[in-house]
Amino acid sequence: MKKFTIALDCMGGDRAPQIVVEGADIIASTHDDVHFLFFGDEKRITPIINHCRNLKDRYTLIHTDDAISADEKPSSALRRGTKSSMRLAIDSVKNGESDVVVSAGNTGALMAISKVILRPLDSIDRPAIVTSIPNQKKKATVMLDMGANIECGADVLFQFAVMGHAFARVVLDVENPTIGVLNVGSEELKGHDEVKNVAAMLKESHLKSCFHGYVEGDDIMKGTVDVVVTDGFSGNISLKAIEGAVKLVSGIIKEGFTDSIWSKLGYLFAGPSISRVTKAIDPRMHNGAMLVGLNGVVVKSHGSTDRIGFANAIKVALSLIKNKINERIMEELQLEKKAMPAASANNAKDI
Amino acid sequence: MKKFTIALDCMGGDRAPQIVVEGADIIASTHDDVHFLFFGDEKRITPIINHCRNLKDRYTLIHTDDAISADEKPSSALRRGTKSSMRLAIDSVKNGESDVVVSAGNTGALMAISKVILRPLDSIDRPAIVTSIPNQKKKATVMLDMGANIECGADVLFQFAVMGHAFARVVLDVENPTIGVLNVGSEELKGHDEVKNVAAMLKESHLKSCFHGYVEGDDIMKGTVDVVVTDGFSGNISLKAIEGAVKLVSGIIKEGFTDSIWSKLGYLFAGPSISRVTKAIDPRMHNGAMLVGLNGVVVKSHGSTDRIGFANAIKVALSLIKNKINERIMEELQLEKKAMPAASANNAKDI
Repeated sequence: MKKFTIALDCMGGDRAPQIVVEGADIIASTHDDVHFLFFGDEKRITPIINHCRNLKDRYTLIHTDDAISADEKPSSALRRGTKSSMRLAIDSVKNGESDVVVSAGNTGALMAISKVILRPLDSIDRPAIVTSIPNQKKKATVMLDMGANIECGADVLFQFAVMGHAFARVVLDVENPTIGVLNVGSEELKGHDEVKNVAAMLKESHLKSCFHGYVEGDDIMKGTVDVVVTDGFSGNISLKAIEGAVKLVSGIIKEGFTDSIWSKLGYLFAGPSISRVTKAIDPRMHNGAMLVGLNGVVVKSHGSTDRIGFANAIKVALSLIKNKINERIMEELQLEKKAMPAASANNAKDI
Repeated sequence: MKKFTIALDCMGGDRAPQIVVEGADIIASTHDDVHFLFFGDEKRITPIINHCRNLKDRYTLIHTDDAISADEKPSSALRRGTKSSMRLAIDSVKNGESDVVVSAGNTGALMAISKVILRPLDSIDRPAIVTSIPNQKKKATVMLDMGANIECGADVLFQFAVMGHAFARVVLDVENPTIGVLNVGSEELKGHDEVKNVAAMLKESHLKSCFHGYVEGDDIMKGTVDVVVTDGFSGNISLKAIEGAVKLVSGIIKEGFTDSIWSKLGYLFAGPSISRVTKAIDPRMHNGAMLVGLNGVVVKSHGSTDRIGFANAIKVALSLIKNKINERIMEELQLEKKAMPAASANNAKDI
């Protein structure tokens, strides 16, 4: 049996190292083919490992005192944090000691360090953050960029479309995923220049048969297309707007079940059904976003998730490497190479 | 008793003229102080009026055959539609024959015609679309621009903040509404130049004590601030993303109540409570967005709403004119006039 080695940044995230180690324990209980590299403070990690049932002989602990904080600037993390748990975990992918790295730490630092250490894939100028969002069709919508590049030229958006298409093939298991460009209306004349230009490029590309056209904000959860392409500013605010809406509505429903004796009785009957269906939109079940476009697989977990959410991010990481995500993306890029313009690094700005 | 005259574009929206006339009927039943001007095709409108109970002696019908279609370009609507129901309704505000106009028609055309006929307020370069979104604090978050100006310079965003602040004072009845600028993070170094520059301007302005700083997508429904300021691209996609999320979650809950005999029984008990609380986020109850920054009050209804939603848009219109919204905004503008830079029209592009 082929073994996969997963590097975990044990010091990143609001509840690290606890949820990281316990998330690994959950995965170890159901996956025989994984070995973990834990990077972090052994004095804090060892007691947690000791109460985990499934980690015996399944991990290597690499001690470091240093960690990147949530509010540290990416530039400072890069310069100062060469011995940090995040950096050592990324180094292990670079050196071939691990197959993938998962971190719940500082997103800007994770992207900056990954770009410098792993380098972008050939013909990719700007790696992006790609995630899957549950939709009405009971599948998922792949969306990028979720916040790594706040302003993007059309050529950078085009590269996102190519990477998102390959990602959706692997993650959604769809032969020819459809692609939409996020805009304020579906008519051709709407939107700013970058959006119009990337639409024109997609219509002329090898992806033209997959290109649906423009989509709007509500199409993300309708599942109108498999892949939604946008810049990191719009991607980030729309994803967070969705998170806020899901929280509000779930809270209101919960309130409705507790405001009288009758509604509490109603919950006794309907509760199990409600729980089963709401699980489908539990953000923990969709935790784990890939930093796509790098020579190496890097997965970002939500910083405030729990062990179940972190375990899901590890599952995502495992699925990506088992499905050879980067080889698939490189094949797509190869297909497009001649048609794809070389984007200038000036077309996108970091956060 | 002072009477208010409300001009209604009876031919705009997916289910016009029916929902427009029936919405007016709902308002007529509870408000003695309103008179309606119905603009549209009398052959289609009269039969609807005839089955309405409360409209007798409460309306004037101004016949026109012409209407602006949902997909007509704003420039064409302006040039061609001088006898359209939308244009005549806006003309009536200009001529002082009505106090406010409500339309469920083509948003781009409504903004374009309103700008040409009514003109922007003194020292406002770009009128915007402002709406209220329900939040976790059981109040509403005022947000603008929702899609009239897809790219905005910092000076235009600053004008949005001033207008949003005045709007929130009237609509939320809060003495000093707090203001946030939508961004991808709350740290000072995040975001693109326009966002950073408007934040710097707000810190130096007469609104500095109300300025909270940056807010993120999930803050819209958390109710972190009373007013969220953003460009029309981000405002439009985040509002629609929220609409999509509310639909998805509501659908999932509904499914949970119908998937077994037990859950159906549960609904019998909990249903009334659930209905009561979900009413709080019913989009119809929040229908009615103002085109703010014009010499005249224009209210846009969602194109696909029903009579209850359209009645709510009329209620919003009535509240705005009763509270002298434009006088309040002009007072705010006066306060800021010296500090406020003259924005160039080139800083924003229309859809």
